[in-house]
Amino acid sequence: MNRSMIRYILGWVLKIEAVLMLLPCATAVIYQEKEITTFLIVTALCAACGFLLTLKKPDNTVFYLKEGCMATALSWIVMSLFGCLPFIISGAIPSFTDALFETISGFTTTGATILADVEILPHSILLWRSFTHWIGGMGVLVFLLAVVPMSGGSNMNLMKAESPGPSVGKLVPRVRITARILYYIYIGMTITQIVLMVLGGAPLFDAVTISFGTAGTGGFGIRNDSIAGYSPYIQWLVAVFMALFGVNFNAYYFMLYRKWKKAFSMEEVRYYLLIMFGVTGIITIDVLRASLGTGHTVRDVFFQVSSLMTSTGFSTLDYDIWPVTSKTLLVMTMFVGACAGSTGGGIKVSRFVILLKTMKKEMSSYMYPKSIRKIRMEGKPVEHEVVRAVNVFFITFMMLFALSILIVSFDGKDMTSNFTGVLACLNNIGPGMEMTGPTENFASFSVLSKYVLMFDMLAGRLELFPLLLLFHPSAWKQLACRKKG
Amino acid sequence: MNRSMIRYILGWVLKIEAVLMLLPCATAVIYQEKEITTFLIVTALCAACGFLLTLKKPDNTVFYLKEGCMATALSWIVMSLFGCLPFIISGAIPSFTDALFETISGFTTTGATILADVEILPHSILLWRSFTHWIGGMGVLVFLLAVVPMSGGSNMNLMKAESPGPSVGKLVPRVRITARILYYIYIGMTITQIVLMVLGGAPLFDAVTISFGTAGTGGFGIRNDSIAGYSPYIQWLVAVFMALFGVNFNAYYFMLYRKWKKAFSMEEVRYYLLIMFGVTGIITIDVLRASLGTGHTVRDVFFQVSSLMTSTGFSTLDYDIWPVTSKTLLVMTMFVGACAGSTGGGIKVSRFVILLKTMKKEMSSYMYPKSIRKIRMEGKPVEHEVVRAVNVFFITFMMLFALSILIVSFDGKDMTSNFTGVLACLNNIGPGMEMTGPTENFASFSVLSKYVLMFDMLAGRLELFPLLLLFHPSAWKQLACRKKG
Repeated sequence: MNRSMIRYILGWVLKIEAVLMLLPCATAVIYQEKEITTFLIVTALCAACGFLLTLKKPDNTVFYLKEGCMATALSWIVMSLFGCLPFIISGAIPSFTDALFETISGFTTTGATILADVEILPHSILLWRSFTHWIGGMGVLVFLLAVVPMSGGSNMNLMKAESPGPSVGKLVPRVRITARILYYIYIGMTITQIVLMVLGGAPLFDAVTISFGTAGTGGFGIRNDSIAGYSPYIQWLVAVFMALFGVNFNAYYFMLYRKWKKAFSMEEVRYYLLIMFGVTGIITIDVLRASLGTGHTVRDVFFQVSSLMTSTGFSTLDYDIWPVTSKTLLVMTMFVGACAGSTGGGIKVSRFVILLKTMKKEMSSYMYPKSIRKIRMEGKPVEHEVVRAVNVFFITFMMLFALSILIVSFDGKDMTSNFTGVLACLNNIGPGMEMTGPTENFASFSVLSKYVLMFDMLAGRLELFPLLLLFHPSAWKQLACRKKG
Repeated sequence: MNRSMIRYILGWVLKIEAVLMLLPCATAVIYQEKEITTFLIVTALCAACGFLLTLKKPDNTVFYLKEGCMATALSWIVMSLFGCLPFIISGAIPSFTDALFETISGFTTTGATILADVEILPHSILLWRSFTHWIGGMGVLVFLLAVVPMSGGSNMNLMKAESPGPSVGKLVPRVRITARILYYIYIGMTITQIVLMVLGGAPLFDAVTISFGTAGTGGFGIRNDSIAGYSPYIQWLVAVFMALFGVNFNAYYFMLYRKWKKAFSMEEVRYYLLIMFGVTGIITIDVLRASLGTGHTVRDVFFQVSSLMTSTGFSTLDYDIWPVTSKTLLVMTMFVGACAGSTGGGIKVSRFVILLKTMKKEMSSYMYPKSIRKIRMEGKPVEHEVVRAVNVFFITFMMLFALSILIVSFDGKDMTSNFTGVLACLNNIGPGMEMTGPTENFASFSVLSKYVLMFDMLAGRLELFPLLLLFHPSAWKQLACRKKG
């Protein structure tokens, strides 16, 4: 294991975090809040630790997938440990467990909160809280790749470990350029949303924080009723942008380079939109049938579906009062999630498409045992290795899901709360149902449950294996052994 | 598709059903019940149809897996259609849908009932109801193989389609002898249970019907409170025999031939017992902690765990009042199910062991990318084909599970009832929780939901693919096309 490369990457992550923390610093200055000292202390701490860790460049830059996974998992943990300090020092969230929960929930773009009242928080704290979503959305290591020149085979392995989806493709041959293009698109879309929100009458601060939460598909709001209090225009805008940030960014890349045909023929995106609109249609009928409709049912339904399917977690109403078919469909879209290569969470549409095609192929193999057709996706045959990885991902997801529900059940909450609460964390959504629903929060869970849910949030964001690897005995053995580095 | 072979097999299944129906006929004679005419009519009908279908022996006995699956799926449907006639004609269950539900629930050894009061039913009807469990437990096609001489490659493909488990092994080289040995063990164990129950003071009728329900891991009782009203001795006996019928029958075969070491070193059986006793221990602690304990908590807990894990579905109390951790664990054991090669349902312990080993291997592959070790089970390497089939099974199970919950949700029952109700049918258990719990029944579901649940019961018993194949368009195209026969 290449220990010095992992150390070097961790150092750079902290340096980047220090730079990013200047944004809440500036906010504190603008609003003349006393939290300025808090943020300056933490910025200095991040910078100092970062510089210490990167003082010595590693001699050996050879870097395999295992190091990529370890570096990514450890980066996210270290980033969260430093990122929760502003909450603790400022006194916004005095408990370490709760502050860490909120920070991990932020970086992993989950949006599950332990705060019952967010409106009493100072602007700089609220901004940092929403900014963690934006940072975590595209990923800090992708950012690192975009800005820091690194040599060796490290780049692709870092990108693989942090980026969601069954197979990570490079847009262009060079990883660094790919990472840059992704961030250009990400920044461009975020700014567009901010501008459109301000034009629609939202205060700049609200526009910025909500856009951060939308872009990262996070879901931390700055009002206790999430997005319910904003105008219909803003609600439509947020709903549409949530859906847009759940689209595979490759589509935007194709558009950027005017490859229109390629952009609009992406199989995963078409299924994604089909599910989103299909579910919106059925739930709308179901809600109207149950006489729960209002003048703006379609907007409300599309908002919640877009929010839960893209794993954002904003809400404009308490969908817990909807009829059971609607709630069942919502839970299912929570499982499916957004597109691979987006900022959204969940199992991902492409994985489900591959799983369904696997089933179809299995049935055909009974009828035509000698056929050896491969599954096709996006017009290309899917390698057996990818199919296998998708299968194992699904199985591991379900096992981790079941184990988490069991541990969380010790708290004595009802089964639906546990089931949807764990699902909301593991898929980085935020709110679940019943006692973890949109009008509730996660404060009532025990410390043990909170750590399980934190683990699930990280596992969900890093797509299980990079994080699970931390529990593989030989990972630590190899990390401790200097020779093999 | 070899149509004439499928016809021939269907005919034999009906002839066997006619013979088996002589048992309720005899019961009606003994108890001097007017249902004797009902059973004689149905027996005659089965026999007549059976003879007509088997009049002409098929010229071509070549028989592939697809024919095996089609024949099995159609056999179970035809068997159920004729099997529900006594309920309708006798007036015990006048509705066709309900009678078919009860019969499919019986043959598939589910034990989910639409009857609120079973104590008013005549003895012959109760016996037929419990006897369907016994017939379906080991499988009517396995019985067919044991008694009817058939040539061609048909034997193994029928056995594969009907027998549970990821890979079907023959005990001895000849399929016919294997089927006979399985039935000898099955009959021997059933008689042992009947004798032990009678020795313990149970009336012969109760002993026979409950033993049928235990042997097939079915769960239809003859009293409204299931097994709660029997003596502690009977409760322990039934609990132990449920556990025994959930063991892979290979273990008994090894014992029969004094291969003690082989019998006691079976990996699946050891995991099975480990889970059963582990879960019993944890639930006992949880129930006692919640001050819900009684003087016989261990017996009650072991009974419900053994009942739900082996997919039997008998109960001695309403476990719906247990604390949430206990209920969560019960739901998990419902997913796991019994051993492959037993009469029990569920996903099966061996599949879960293979799934867990697949996950472990995936993690190791990150650490040691060049390693090509195979997963090992029962001391032997597991072929990639089996691993793939297990993965696809799990995925298909989950998809069918989700789709069924969605359709059943139209009835407006709560999410826990739908979730556990579908699980109870798909895994052939019987009772679920809340509105499908042990003190409730399935009568309140809509007709649509009942047909979905019937489909799930059949799909669960035949392990998904044989039944799903009925929905493959080319299956019917090939069946309609005489030339390819």
